[in-house]
Amino acid sequence: MPEALAGTPEPPYWAVVFTSVRTADDPGGYAEAAARMLDLAARQPGFLGAESVRGDDGVGITVSYWDSPEAIAAWRAHPEHRAVQRTGAERWYARYAIRVCRVEREAGGGAS
Amino acid sequence: MPEALAGTPEPPYWAVVFTSVRTADDPGGYAEAAARMLDLAARQPGFLGAESVRGDDGVGITVSYWDSPEAIAAWRAHPEHRAVQRTGAERWYARYAIRVCRVEREAGGGAS
Repeated sequence: MPEALAGTPEPPYWAVVFTSVRTADDPGGYAEAAARMLDLAARQPGFLGAESVRGDDGVGITVSYWDSPEAIAAWRAHPEHRAVQRTGAERWYARYAIRVCRVEREAGGGAS
Repeated sequence: MPEALAGTPEPPYWAVVFTSVRTADDPGGYAEAAARMLDLAARQPGFLGAESVRGDDGVGITVSYWDSPEAIAAWRAHPEHRAVQRTGAERWYARYAIRVCRVEREAGGGAS
């Protein structure tokens, strides 16, 4: 991703919060697929941005932002994404949760 | 936090997605305050759970879950939390974004 924090428009818009715990299995294949999925997501209609972090303990959170629930549904149904979802559920993730959300309000700032 | 992934009820409920980039400043004070805030949040009315990850690059995502927007507003206005928000904006975070969301749908699974 080009930026650590996504530049999103005025709410409302939509978010997919994907939280997961990695297995120890297949680190190379996982890393390659994760990078590919972020790249592919960024080229889908309605994509607004994404933020992704994984800690040393294997816990990860990826939030992707979309302009509509229809855009999220289309991305979920993308054939290459579906294949990766299956491998994730079976091999890469000990546990995961996906939450589809409507973003109602946004604020921000910082010292820089 | 007791669990890496939060156990949340059937949607709808609410989420606060807090994404940030740390400065290099005050690692000890920051770590102490971050742990204290998660502990304090967990004791507020309407708190449902939280998930938090920070990567080696200083990017972090914390998602907290709440049963209503009123519970989120009360937590935002908590005096000790407000003091930490000020220090965060001035010292700990180079950049941050806060997004308040209504969770509409949840799914999950995994290999374990």
